[in-house]
This record gives sequence, structure tokens and C-alpha cells, in this order.
Amino acid sequence: MVETLIKMGESITESMELEYRNNLSSIMRIEKDCLGRMEIPQNAYYGIQSRRAKENFPLSGHKIHKKLIWGMGLVKYACIEANLKTKSMPYEIGNALKIACHEFIDGKFDNEIIVESIQGGAGTSINMNVNEILANRGLEILGEEKGRYDIISPNTHVNMAQSTNDVVPTAFKIAVLSMRQSLIESLEKLLGALKEKEIQFDDIVTIGRTHLQDAIPIRLGQEFGAYARLITRDIKRINQAMESLNNVNLGATAVGTGLNADPEYIKAAIEELSIITGMDIKLAEHLMDSTQNTDCYVHLSGSIRTCALNLSKMCNDLRLMASGPICGLMEIKLPAVQPGSSIMPGKVNPVMIEMMNQICFQIQGNDHAIAMASEAGQFQLNVMAPVIFKNMFESIEILTNGVKVLTERCIVGILANEEECKKRVDNSIGVVTALNPHIGYEKSSAIAKEVLETRRSVREVVLKKGFLTEEELDIILQPKEMTEPGVAGAKILGLRTI
Amino acid sequence: MVETLIKMGESITESMELEYRNNLSSIMRIEKDCLGRMEIPQNAYYGIQSRRAKENFPLSGHKIHKKLIWGMGLVKYACIEANLKTKSMPYEIGNALKIACHEFIDGKFDNEIIVESIQGGAGTSINMNVNEILANRGLEILGEEKGRYDIISPNTHVNMAQSTNDVVPTAFKIAVLSMRQSLIESLEKLLGALKEKEIQFDDIVTIGRTHLQDAIPIRLGQEFGAYARLITRDIKRINQAMESLNNVNLGATAVGTGLNADPEYIKAAIEELSIITGMDIKLAEHLMDSTQNTDCYVHLSGSIRTCALNLSKMCNDLRLMASGPICGLMEIKLPAVQPGSSIMPGKVNPVMIEMMNQICFQIQGNDHAIAMASEAGQFQLNVMAPVIFKNMFESIEILTNGVKVLTERCIVGILANEEECKKRVDNSIGVVTALNPHIGYEKSSAIAKEVLETRRSVREVVLKKGFLTEEELDIILQPKEMTEPGVAGAKILGLRTI
Amino acid sequence: MVETLIKMGESITESMELEYRNNLSSIMRIEKDCLGRMEIPQNAYYGIQSRRAKENFPLSGHKIHKKLIWGMGLVKYACIEANLKTKSMPYEIGNALKIACHEFIDGKFDNEIIVESIQGGAGTSINMNVNEILANRGLEILGEEKGRYDIISPNTHVNMAQSTNDVVPTAFKIAVLSMRQSLIESLEKLLGALKEKEIQFDDIVTIGRTHLQDAIPIRLGQEFGAYARLITRDIKRINQAMESLNNVNLGATAVGTGLNADPEYIKAAIEELSIITGMDIKLAEHLMDSTQNTDCYVHLSGSIRTCALNLSKMCNDLRLMASGPICGLMEIKLPAVQPGSSIMPGKVNPVMIEMMNQICFQIQGNDHAIAMASEAGQFQLNVMAPVIFKNMFESIEILTNGVKVLTERCIVGILANEEECKKRVDNSIGVVTALNPHIGYEKSSAIAKEVLETRRSVREVVLKKGFLTEEELDIILQPKEMTEPGVAGAKILGLRTI
Amino acid sequence: MVETLIKMGESITESMELEYRNNLSSIMRIEKDCLGRMEIPQNAYYGIQSRRAKENFPLSGHKIHKKLIWGMGLVKYACIEANLKTKSMPYEIGNALKIACHEFIDGKFDNEIIVESIQGGAGTSINMNVNEILANRGLEILGEEKGRYDIISPNTHVNMAQSTNDVVPTAFKIAVLSMRQSLIESLEKLLGALKEKEIQFDDIVTIGRTHLQDAIPIRLGQEFGAYARLITRDIKRINQAMESLNNVNLGATAVGTGLNADPEYIKAAIEELSIITGMDIKLAEHLMDSTQNTDCYVHLSGSIRTCALNLSKMCNDLRLMASGPICGLMEIKLPAVQPGSSIMPGKVNPVMIEMMNQICFQIQGNDHAIAMASEAGQFQLNVMAPVIFKNMFESIEILTNGVKVLTERCIVGILANEEECKKRVDNSIGVVTALNPHIGYEKSSAIAKEVLETRRSVREVVLKKGFLTEEELDIILQPKEMTEPGVAGAKILGLRTI
Repeated sequence: MVETLIKMGESITESMELEYRNNLSSIMRIEKDCLGRMEIPQNAYYGIQSRRAKENFPLSGHKIHKKLIWGMGLVKYACIEANLKTKSMPYEIGNALKIACHEFIDGKFDNEIIVESIQGGAGTSINMNVNEILANRGLEILGEEKGRYDIISPNTHVNMAQSTNDVVPTAFKIAVLSMRQSLIESLEKLLGALKEKEIQFDDIVTIGRTHLQDAIPIRLGQEFGAYARLITRDIKRINQAMESLNNVNLGATAVGTGLNADPEYIKAAIEELSIITGMDIKLAEHLMDSTQNTDCYVHLSGSIRTCALNLSKMCNDLRLMASGPICGLMEIKLPAVQPGSSIMPGKVNPVMIEMMNQICFQIQGNDHAIAMASEAGQFQLNVMAPVIFKNMFESIEILTNGVKVLTERCIVGILANEEECKKRVDNSIGVVTALNPHIGYEKSSAIAKEVLETRRSVREVVLKKGFLTEEELDIILQPKEMTEPGVAGAKILGLRTI
Repeated sequence: MVETLIKMGESITESMELEYRNNLSSIMRIEKDCLGRMEIPQNAYYGIQSRRAKENFPLSGHKIHKKLIWGMGLVKYACIEANLKTKSMPYEIGNALKIACHEFIDGKFDNEIIVESIQGGAGTSINMNVNEILANRGLEILGEEKGRYDIISPNTHVNMAQSTNDVVPTAFKIAVLSMRQSLIESLEKLLGALKEKEIQFDDIVTIGRTHLQDAIPIRLGQEFGAYARLITRDIKRINQAMESLNNVNLGATAVGTGLNADPEYIKAAIEELSIITGMDIKLAEHLMDSTQNTDCYVHLSGSIRTCALNLSKMCNDLRLMASGPICGLMEIKLPAVQPGSSIMPGKVNPVMIEMMNQICFQIQGNDHAIAMASEAGQFQLNVMAPVIFKNMFESIEILTNGVKVLTERCIVGILANEEECKKRVDNSIGVVTALNPHIGYEKSSAIAKEVLETRRSVREVVLKKGFLTEEELDIILQPKEMTEPGVAGAKILGLRTI
Repeated sequence: MVETLIKMGESITESMELEYRNNLSSIMRIEKDCLGRMEIPQNAYYGIQSRRAKENFPLSGHKIHKKLIWGMGLVKYACIEANLKTKSMPYEIGNALKIACHEFIDGKFDNEIIVESIQGGAGTSINMNVNEILANRGLEILGEEKGRYDIISPNTHVNMAQSTNDVVPTAFKIAVLSMRQSLIESLEKLLGALKEKEIQFDDIVTIGRTHLQDAIPIRLGQEFGAYARLITRDIKRINQAMESLNNVNLGATAVGTGLNADPEYIKAAIEELSIITGMDIKLAEHLMDSTQNTDCYVHLSGSIRTCALNLSKMCNDLRLMASGPICGLMEIKLPAVQPGSSIMPGKVNPVMIEMMNQICFQIQGNDHAIAMASEAGQFQLNVMAPVIFKNMFESIEILTNGVKVLTERCIVGILANEEECKKRVDNSIGVVTALNPHIGYEKSSAIAKEVLETRRSVREVVLKKGFLTEEELDIILQPKEMTEPGVAGAKILGLRTI
Repeated sequence: MVETLIKMGESITESMELEYRNNLSSIMRIEKDCLGRMEIPQNAYYGIQSRRAKENFPLSGHKIHKKLIWGMGLVKYACIEANLKTKSMPYEIGNALKIACHEFIDGKFDNEIIVESIQGGAGTSINMNVNEILANRGLEILGEEKGRYDIISPNTHVNMAQSTNDVVPTAFKIAVLSMRQSLIESLEKLLGALKEKEIQFDDIVTIGRTHLQDAIPIRLGQEFGAYARLITRDIKRINQAMESLNNVNLGATAVGTGLNADPEYIKAAIEELSIITGMDIKLAEHLMDSTQNTDCYVHLSGSIRTCALNLSKMCNDLRLMASGPICGLMEIKLPAVQPGSSIMPGKVNPVMIEMMNQICFQIQGNDHAIAMASEAGQFQLNVMAPVIFKNMFESIEILTNGVKVLTERCIVGILANEEECKKRVDNSIGVVTALNPHIGYEKSSAIAKEVLETRRSVREVVLKKGFLTEEELDIILQPKEMTEPGVAGAKILGLRTI
């Protein structure tokens, strides 16, 4: 067993070495870059620079997000098309590369993306991994051997008029934009479910709480209405933040000056990209700004974390209202989705909600990483972009999916415990607040004190003290009326002086 | 000296006790609330609840922000006026309280606000501190003794139709809105200064950098142009986030239902508040939502921290460009504003910029506190509001003032070190990038390697290798042309195959 | 009123200018530094560099913490003494400065520290503010005019063999160490109070909760015992982190090499400092490390934030247990310390606890600022030190004072609501867990389900199903026995097969 | 292509449904729990509760960390052994389960762990996934059909005397402890490499920098010595924080009271666990404390983030020192590990270092998520534990592997650029600091100013002014001597008065 421990202790770097050794036994080709030669498995589409990157950053095995890979394929396609249009790229090569791109976009080479999500180099390794795959697949299509970069070069041809610093951020923006619809849909479904509850529970009067202490009556539907308004704003804020991602820096090349990118090419690339993505892609107003600054990501992440904080607040309320089944507040019932305990029979827990709380914490952490990475940009580039990508993808994905299952498996099935709600209102002392306009805060205060001490009803104590008559109390003490603006018993006001 | 140590060890709670003992020796009046009696200095305008709060939360002596006090005065004034309009408040009392409010808004009672900024109770202590001051000043105006709450009650009269939970957030929003103009002005002055530098340095070609490594030529003006675009977006984002603060929950009272607040009163109060503040104050759409949710603060704080992160990035660049005076990058010169060292003669440091970096870190921390506090709201109220207020005020204030002095004392006075910039461009290897479209990335790569090893010029090595002619190089190697989109030497392109 | 608004809109920079203009009308002396001349109020002890710093960083008026000022006085005293010992400082000057230091340490010049807490320059402005005060007071003692720095120079004499970069961090460490005792005492008093409750509530069986859902019986005392263990570890962690502050870099001067600081002087200064502070001050092992690295602050802040998070968790529990007074869990009662609402009569809120939650959020934010500032150090110095100081002081101070009042005004007075606790246990279903070893999880599960549906008692349902006899149930269903390790009814185990 | 977009838009929940539909076509068995029936693929070892959890939390596909799975296997093995010892578990069943555990620990069922890392329910789904796998494999070993939980029950048997709330945290602690050695080894190798550089570069005098401005001479080796001291402390802090994980709550069961766990069983389980892990596992002092509190994780995460911040600071320095190759500081050379640009030929970037900066940001974010999750614990359990686990694993893993490759591929290969270092020192003005003790700060200041303006040497200007003689300057101006404590030219001190 102790052996087992040691075996498990093997690190990812060791397992990588093992894999490498295995590879060495297969048939290899030799590739070469400005740093020297390296063996690459003959069947691999990735090349020497991908291999170097894989070895340089063996951190946790966390993969590049599929959306980013897909986005890179689209961007490469648009650039090749634009280079063909400006006649910068030989027709034959361009054509082969376009076919390769098609396959790439369809996900056929996802496993050839061997670099991890956190990596030095601002995404150069992602870009080169893609360039090498496309070059090698292009060569294959032309009937050439993989690795013949003298015929199709990952840099000269596939990367023509491009730099990591424009294509990777552009691909990232497209990737994020493609996730927008699902996210907004998830939130809208939640919104719909909350609004339904708002209507469904509109008649149920329960006790409002501030400071976790009993306050005055509210309608349960109002509470869900408040959550709905919150989500409405979140949708608006996220949509607003997403808008800015439509502006891309494709054509900015290395530092935002556009060196090696002909204006014609840039125009064509942007147009092509808009067409194939079906998105309204625009060239950023100031390319150097757009190349080096990552504020649009921070802003987007900020809108997402605000949403997550809001959801967590709502979820905390729901968990409290559902606490029980016997010794808690028991004002609502959540759908049971799985047994809650391995030891306590019959226990059912609010697991969907707890999941959402955890999603909130994760998103806060991710937002923090994004903020620090954004601040760390220097001069013409933010080389910390890969860690921004990783965290943004996770945040959007877990929020989208989390909200979806939360809605479906929890929110839509929430039931009110009317009986308990009624009991709360009937017993609570908070209704004395409605007496303020009639007898003043100080007398109301004395009544509240006596009610709490004697456990008599508010009505009883008021009558005993002779502050108001039974008829007056009948008019004033209407819990449901207290749930809308107005002075309870306004019509009898002024009969007494406060 | 050791005694001194001990003396300094005296905590704030001890010093408070001392003050209290001193107070006891002065003439005192007795006040009473539902928890019992307490002595209050006769000359004090604050009352028993303020005193309790002061004793409950003696944390660091950090005061309630003056803007919040001022905002409270305005809100109280509007509420009294509205209560007079609806004839709920006796005319004489209302009149006296209006005079008291005028004085209060003018800052005459700022020292009577004795509660600290961090406090339990969601702001009840702030509200009651204000209520007590106004009641006592009102009594004085009526010729009555302070403490005669049977004549003017802090709760029944001053707080009529109000709750902490609607007046304090409303006052806070007004306070923040009143700081908006200064903040935006500060940022706009910075923006103006950056745009001036964009023009001023438009002709200066220098080396662009990615990964802190030499890249390809840029114009120094472009760099400042990129900063300017960043600030433009920040202004837009902050303005957008500020907008939502115009919606207040005045009239929502305790839990957002508006109990004890007549619709007529609410309408009148909002109108009055708009008039006396000169702001476009609107009643929030859903009062329960507006009372319990603090997402608008998180959103605002998010826009501020994004701005701060951007400024910090810009500042880091400036510090790097100004590094020297002999052993650094020395591409720009910052105005000297104070001697930089107590030991190193002649040293001058970029202190204005370092200040801004620190402001950024502080704002990040504040934002974090605000986010956590916002998530901690429960049911009908976020009782953590006071810590949100504290951090928001600090963030806005240090950003406003920090940007102002940064602009005036640093940005406007930045000079370019043209000579050094020119040297960088002349010596750098990055210009080989312009050869890619002509000879391909691989050959350019070989040239770059040889240039670095031999320290010959790019031109020299290209000629030696015979890749291009002198005439062709004359056309291609124009650093300034490289700073705009296009293929350097496009016209001679295609003469060779890549 | 609108005027008022505008008046309040006046920024801190404007109010500073106003003050400056007022100063100009008083009698002024001229001072001079390497950047030029400036007028200084004749009666001021601070000088030109302090003035410059005040004008450079007019952010929020937040003052340098008194403990740091006091620490600076002690360090200066030790350095002067050491310089006298090594005969580097003229005797007469040194003597005058020692007297000045005495007064300074006694707090006589606290108002002359005019620079704000956030400032560029790593503390040079703090150091020079102190140096100038001491020089001018020294001059006065010698019968000379203030400003005669040719006789006593703030740099050459007061700052002899020192740099901001060694004296300020040393003073900061001493300042923090001087706050250690109060902090630990506060925590120990809390610990004592919790242990008292552990004993006091040892007999009260109540329902344990996981996921906010009813679980199995616990004793209320155990819960307080759990809190006590938490605080025990916090005290240990904070003490451990404080230890490292005893190592100071006094004598490291500007970059940690000790240039201009004779080894004899360093030895003497450290010894003197130990004596006058009564602390075990030691010279750091590696002076360059100690001068540039701020990890000991991050570590200390980390131990403080861990404590704050723990307190916040405990406080959340307490608020939940105290929720009510009628519609909540009502398992404990907290002391009433102030009326809870301006509108709801009789409402009392857990304000001391809410204060502690907010302290936690503030400390998390502060910790975040400290972490970012620490990461931003470069080469031989962390110029972001001032923002670290500010946040550390606040964190320690609010934790110390917050825990003190929380203990005194809340924890010690907590009462158990025995009746309610008993009711919870009697009604809860969780006790079926004790049946697992006797009848297996699956049968227990069926019982739990039926109990919840029928609201019959566990005992009733088990008997009805015939799973166990009444005698067996008498042995098994003993809630209090369930609160310690063991199989309830172990002695009858094995009579049935699971 | 637009189709492609839509295809990629398919969410994880959709792909899960697809998989589920595929499963439905294979042979299925029916399982049942207290919520109802469900079809499970006949060949699956996981069961109904695992399936429910998988469907409840389909967030991002992020898997449970293998170390946690492994740790669960060890804990289950120890518990079965202990239950056999106390004769609570039928011998035959226990034996089959022990064999199943062996296989499980060897990783044979890793793919059967189908629940994701973020999940509601505090780990119940992890525990039940393991329980179901072991039960089904146990059944198989006994020759029974999978799903026959009436023979071996995942709850009654596999989970005997256990709860999620004790076994999962115990497994997590063992998992983390098993990663300790690799982490410490990584850091120690880095430490070794830094110390080697300290020696290797001990003779190289270069310019020290504060505020990114030239200061006074240091030795390059000292700088690496400073980094080494930092890592030494990090190792100590991480080791210290790891110690507390040896205390586990195995036997605490559901809420820390140990219900259903016989003291004999607890003792045996702990002993067994110590033996099979080879770790010094101890029972926590207070089981309720240990079950609900997660401060030891926050503390550990705190020590890891402190280390990460330190590494980031060091890395920033290294990137600055290596900036160039022509237009930067160029004081050191980093090993080239991959081509740096897809467009700029010959560019090599400090990618290993940038990777480490990003690791730092990620770890800060993770730490933040852990802190928030820890604060969110309530009553007897912290249900947010899963998100703590996820973030802790990632932090440790990326730090361990990141430091390993940083050391191997960057630190050990760093070379000094002696020539450039010498040039810096020869030209810098900072050496005037050494004149302070001889001529005072003010005169030194004047010299510095003139040197900077005229670009003459310090020596030249001093001589011109006649402040010191050539012989005196020969003694004073020795850069290397300035790198250790002492007054340069101390022996000639006192000849002049300052």
C-alpha cells in the first residue's frame, strides 16, 4: 500500500516524461526551429514548437478550452481567405489550408492541441500549435510529408500577416461571444422561473426579516419578485459588457501597429470573420490600445462576478427559508434531487443551491486572478492573457450550466409552506410598527416589549392598555395590507394625536 | 521609555472610557430608550442611541464620511417637507426641524455624528444619530430643553414614515452621486493630458516591447494614445454604473413594502429630494428589490476597480520608461516633485506614480470587501451596508484626488527622451520582422540570430547573405513607416517568392 | 441648498489649498532642498520635504498611524544613541536630538506629521517628516532658529547612517509588535468566554445541523467548545507570524548592503532599540533580503484574515441560533445593546455580531491590498510599503477592538433557550441515524420517510413496523448519549443482523 | 460554418444527455434509493446516487482530483479493517470490500468516479460514488450481481460507522499530505539553484535599484541570496501549515459527536490509516471542531499564496534584469526554451517566468475562493468543502510543477552579463552616497545634480569642487566595498567636519 502511495506521488512532469519515452519508440520525424532539432512522432500534426511548449508548461494537464481552439480555427480561416484575396498567399497553399481549417473547426484536431491552458508567452504556444497543425495537415492535403515547412511554413504561410498578439485575442473574443447566448438563455430561464414564483406566491403573506430578526409582513411573491429584478439587471450588465468584445484587433499584428498587415487584408479578414461567425465583428478603433489592454475582460468578469454574488445571496435566502424539515424556518420546500447523507437516513439537502454558492466563490476567485493578470500587462502586450482565458472560460461555463440546472432542478419546483408562513405572521410582533402613525413609536415600543414578555397577542395588549379600540385595530392590523405602501388604517388617522 | 510603550499601548476603547469619564463630570441630562436610561452631556445634540452605538463600536475612530452626513441631511429635509405636505407632521414641529436640517446640511453638527463608519445594524446608528441631533436642535428652536422627546421624538417625528433601511441607502446614493462630477472631471483632465502627449510625441519613433523584450518600432505618441482610449472607456463605464444610483428606495421603509409610507408622501419626498439635490432622483421600480439588494454598489465598485487596474498598468509602463537616470530605459522623463531619498543625494523617484499603484491596490482591496459584504445580505436587508459605504467612499475619494494630482504633477510634465528613443530603434533587431513578407520568416530568423551574435546591423547581414539589395532595404527598413498598418516595402513585394 | 451641494463638492485638494493660503498669511520661513525653495510657516516643526509630500499626496486626509510615528521616534532615538557611541555624531547635536526624540515619542509632535498614509516613495516622506521635526526641535533646543539645517541637517545628522528603507520598516515592525499584546489579550478573553459557555451549556442537548438541515443531537456546549478550539489555533498562528517581525533590517540603509552604516553602529543601534522597546529585537540574517521582501507582512496578514474568517463563521452561527424572537431558530439569546430599528418598535438586532462580520470583510479586503502590494516589490525595495502599513494597522486595530467589545457586550452574556433546544431534539427525525447499526441504513431510511410524512414519532413508527421492541428503543433513543462517540445501544447490538 | 458555431455551442449538459441516451441503449440494471428508481448501465460500478449527482452538477466536466480518489480508497480500507476488528462487519463482506479497496487504490476505478469537482452536498456524492463502486465490486467478488445492495449495502456496509463528513475531509488531508513531499522538493531544488547563483555571481558588482531608479552598488550574488532566503522561509511556512493536516476527524461521523462510531473502532481506524499511508495520522483533539472548521485549509492556502507572491516578485525582477536583448537592462541572460514569436523572427521571451507569474495569479484567485468558502461554513459542517478541495489541489499542483520546470529550464541556466553590470556601476551616480559621511548629504546632493547635468564623472566633479582629494576618493569610491556594511573610507573619516 505504501508503494501505492509512492506511485500516486508521481507528478505530472514524470508522467509526461514517460509518455515522451513511449513516443520515442514510435516512428519519429525530425523538426527544427531556431533553437535546434527535436523528434516528433511521425503521425502527429503538431510540431516542434508545440512539443517545446508542452514540455515547458506541464502544470496540471488542464487543457485549452475547446471554444478557443474553435475560435482559432475560424480566425485562421478568415486570415487565409484575406491573404488569398490580397494575393499574398499562393493559391494552392491557401486552398489546402482552407480545407485544413474546415476540419480543424469541426474539432478533428482537438487532441493535437497539446499545450496547457496556463503557459508563458501570451498565447504564442497556442498559436504555433494551431499553425503547425494546419501546416502539416495542409502538407498532407498537398500530398507532401508532414514537417516539410519549406513548402508550407507554419509562420510564413499559416501565420501570414498575423501575430499571436492579434489572432489569439480575436479568437478568444469570438469564443466568449459564442458562449454568450447560452449564458443569457440560462439566466433568462431562471428569470422566468422567478417571475412565475412571484405570481404563484403573490397571495402568501409571511414574515419579512432584517438582521435575521422578525420584521414586518411581506408577501412571499414579493421576495421572488425582488430576485427577478436582480437577475434582470444582471442580464443587462452582462450583455453590455459582452458588447465590447465585438471589437477585435485582427491586423494589429505584433504590437498594434499592423506591421506586415496590409489595410486591404485587414478589411477582408474582418469581413470574412463576420460572415463565418455570424457575429458583428468590428475592427477596434485604436489597434495598439486593443492589443495591449485587457480592460474589456475585467469588465466582463466584473459583470459575471456581480451576477454570481447576487445568485449567492438569493441562494442563501432560499437555503434559510427551506431550513428544516422540522427545526428550521420551513417556509418553502425545495425539490429533493438526491439523498443527502451517507449516514443520516431520510436526510435531503439543498445541494443545487450549495452548488451555486460554490460557483459564486469560484467565480470570485477567478475574477481576482483575471484582475491581477490584467494589471500585470506591460507595454504593448499583456503576456498574462492565457490565465485570463482560462479563468474566463471557467467562470462563464460554470455559471451557464450551474444556473441551468439550478433553475430546472430547484427553482421551478419550489413550493411554499403556506401554513408555516401564516403561523409566522400571526405570531410575530412586527405588526406593532403599523401602530406608529396612530400612537407613536414610543407607545408601540412599550407594547412590543410586553408582547414579547407575556407572549400575549399585540391586539390583546393594545386593548388592555386602552390605546386603541377593537374596531380601530380591526382596521389597522391587516397583515396583507401592510405589504404595500401606505399607512395601515390611514382613514382613521388623525383621530388621535401622536 | 518603556512606560511610553505602555502608554501608547492604550487602546481606542480605553481612550473612549477616559473621554466618557470626563463627560460624566460635566453637566448631564438623562435620556431613556427601550433598554434603559443613560447620562448624556447636556450640551450634546446627539442622544442616548448615538451614545450606545458609540460605545458598541469603538473600532478605530474612523468617522462617517461627511458626504453621507450631508446626504442624510438632505434626505431628512425632503421627508419632513413631504410629511408636512401630507399633513402628517404638526406644522410647528416640521418647521423647526426644517431649520435644523438647514444647519445640519451646512455641516454645523458634523462633530455630533459620533458613531464610527463600521458598525452593526445596517446604519440604524447613523440614522438615529441624525434623528437625535435634529430632534434636539428642533427642541432648542422651539425653546424646549434637549431630550424632551415627548415633544419632538427622534423616531415618531424626525423619522416619520421612514426607516433606516430606506433613508440611509438613499442618502448614500446621493452622497456618491455628488462625488461623481469630481471623479469624472479628474479622469477627463487625465484624458486631456494623455491626448496632448499623444500629439506631442507623435513623431518620436521608439522601440515597442512585448514580454519586456524588444519588439518592433512604435511611435511614443501611439503609446499615450492607447492609454487615452483606456481612460475614455473607464469614464464611460463609471458613468454608466453611476446612472443606476439615481433610483432610490425612499418610501420603502423597513422591508421594502412601504408600510407607514403613504404613496402621496413618497411622491412628494422624491420630488423634493430631486429639487434640493439638483439630481434626477427616481423611485426604484421594485422597492423590496431596491431595499435588499446592493448589486448597484458592486457594479460601481467594479467599474472603479477596473479603472484603477488600468491606471496601475499605465503607471507601471511609465515607471519603466522613466527608469534611470543612467542605468534604465530612460525613454521619458517625469517631473521631479520631491527629493527621493533620505540617504542617496540627488535621487528622484516616480512618487506620483507609485502613489497611483498603491491607490489601485487599496481600491482592489476595498472592492473585495464590498463584494463580500454584498454577498452577505440576507432576506429583506443587507445589514453589512456600513462597510460597503466606508470602502466605496474611500475608493472614490482616493481615485478622484489621486488622478487629479497624478495628472497635474506628473502626466502633463512628462518629456520624451528623443535621443534615447532613437538609439533604441536604430540598434534593435525587431525590424527584421518587416523582411518576412519579402524573404519569409525562416530566413529572417537566421538574420536575427546572426545580428544578435555578431552585433552587426540588420542591413549589413542581409546584404552579406544576398537576400535583398541595398535599394530594396532602403525601401523596406523605414522604422516610422513600420508604425502603421501595411507591408513595409509593399511595392517591391512579389519580386521574390516566399 | 444647491449651493450647499456645491460647497460639499469641494475636494480635499481644494481644502488643502485653502489651508495653504491661510498659512501664507502667517509668518513664514524659507526652506530649500535640491528641487528649490518653499515657504514654511515659521511655527511649524515640519519642513520643506514634508510640505512637498503633503501637497503631492492629498488623497483622503487619512493620517499616518500613531503607532508608526511612535515607532519612528524610538528608532531615531536608538540611531542617535548609536551614532553618539561610535562618535560619528557631534555630542551637542546628538544630545539635543535625544531630547527632541523624547518629546516626539511622547506624542508632542503628532500633529506635525502632515503626510498621509498612502504616499509614493516607500516612506521617504514619513522619514523626512520625522527628520525635519527632530532637526527643527533640536535646533530650538540649541537656541537656534528653525530651518537652520546647516547646523542640524535632517539628512546628514538626524538621518545619519540611516535610510528610509531601513528605519521605516524597523519602526513599522516595532509598531505592530507593540499592538500584539492587545490583540492576543482580546482573543484570549474571547477564548475564555467561549470556554465558559462550553461548560455552562454542556448539559443542553439541541439539534445539530448540516446543510442548514436538521441532523442529529449535539450539546450546545460542544458547539462553543468547537469555537474555542478555533480561537486557540488563531492565537497560535498569529503569535507565530508575529515572531518574524522581531528581525529588523536596521543598518541595511538604502539597498540592504549597509553602505554608510558602520558594523559597530549597527550593533549599538539594535541593542539600544531592544532596551528602549523592551522587545527582543534582532538584526535580520540577510539584510538585502530583509530590506526588499515583505513576505512577513503577508504572512501576518494571512494569519489575521484566517482569524477574521473564523470569527465571521462563528458569528454567522450565532446570528442564526439567535434568530427570532418568534419566527426564527431561537436557540440562544444575545444581550440587547441598543434598539434595533428606527421604525420597528421593540426590535433588537445582533449588532455586535454584524459588526464582526463587517470587520471580517474589511480585513479580507485589507489582506488583498497587502498581498497585491507585496507582489509589486521590485529589486532592492518594495516601494508599495505605505499601503501595506495602512492596511495592516487597520486590520490589527479593528480586530483587537472588535473582538474586545464582541466578547464583553455579546459573548459573555449569551443565554441558552433550553426549552426551544429541547423541543428541537424531541421533534427531530435525525435520531433514526442511531438505528443504522441495529436495522441498517435502508430500513432507517424508510422510517425517516414515514415519520416526516405522518408526523408521528420515530418510536411510534419503529414499533408499528416491528423493527425493534420498546425496551430496545428505550436503550437506543437517548439523545444525550448520542452526543459522544459510540453506538447507541451498543450492548444490544448483534441481536439482529443488518 | 455557422452550423459549426451552433454545434460548438452545445453545452456540457447537452452532451451529458447525449451520453445518457447512448447509455440507455446498452443493457441496464435498475437501482433504487429513497427518491425512487433509475436505470444504471449494467457494466457500471457506480450506482444510482452517483448517477443522480452527475446529473445534478454538470458544470464543466472538471474531474475529482485523483489524489482525493486515492485518499478515499485508503480511508475506506482503514474503516473496513477497523469494522472487522470490532466485529461489526460480517467477515465475508469485509474481506471482499478489502480486495475491492486494493483495486480502487490502484486506480482501477478512477473512471467510475463520475461526479464533478464542484458539487453541492459537502462531498456526499464523492463518498457515495466510492461507496457504490466498492459495494458493486465487492458483490462481484462474492459472485453476486451488481446492484444487490441488500447483500452489500453502500451505506450500511461500505459506509459503516462513517459519514461523508468525516471520511471525505480525512481523505482530502491524506491526499494533500501525499503532495507535500513533491512540493517541498520542488522548492528545495529552486532554493539550491538560487544558492548556487548566489555563489556564482558573488563577485559581480552591479547597480542596485529602488523605485526602478538607480541606487547604489550591490553584488548580483546578493540579489540571488535574497531570493534564496525568501524561499527558505516559504518552505518553513508551508511545512508548518501542512503539519496541522495530520489531525483528522475520522470517527466524528455526521456532526462531530461520533454517533455510530465505537471508540474501539475509531482507534483501530486511525492506527490502520497511519500504517497504510506511512503518515503520522492522529485523531483531532475536538471532533466537532475538526468536522466543521476549515481554518487549516485557509492557513495552508495562505502559506502557498505567500510563496506564490514571493515567486512572482522574484520573477518580475528576473524579467526586468533579462529585458533586452538590446534595448533593456540586459544584466542577466535566461536560457532560451522556445521561439518567442510567431511573427518576430529571432525573438525569445522569458516564458518560464511568465508562466510562474500566471501561476501566482491563479493561486491568489484560488486562495480567495478558499477563503470565501471557508467563511461560508454553517453550524456543524462546511458544505462548501468541494470547492475548497478543487482549488487547493490546483494550487499545490501548479506550484509544485511550475517551480520544478522554472528551476530546471530557467533558474539553473541563468547567466550574468558581467560587462553590462560593470558599465552600470561605472556610470551610475549613486556612489555619491558614500560621500555623505565625509562631506554631508547637502554637498553630495549638489555633486549628484552636477554629474547628472554635465555627465561628467562623480570623481571629476568632486575634485573640481575641491571637496576631497584624489587620494581620498581612491579610498572612498570602491564599488565592491560599498556592498557590505560600513562607511566607505572609514579610516579617513573625521579629517573633515560634516
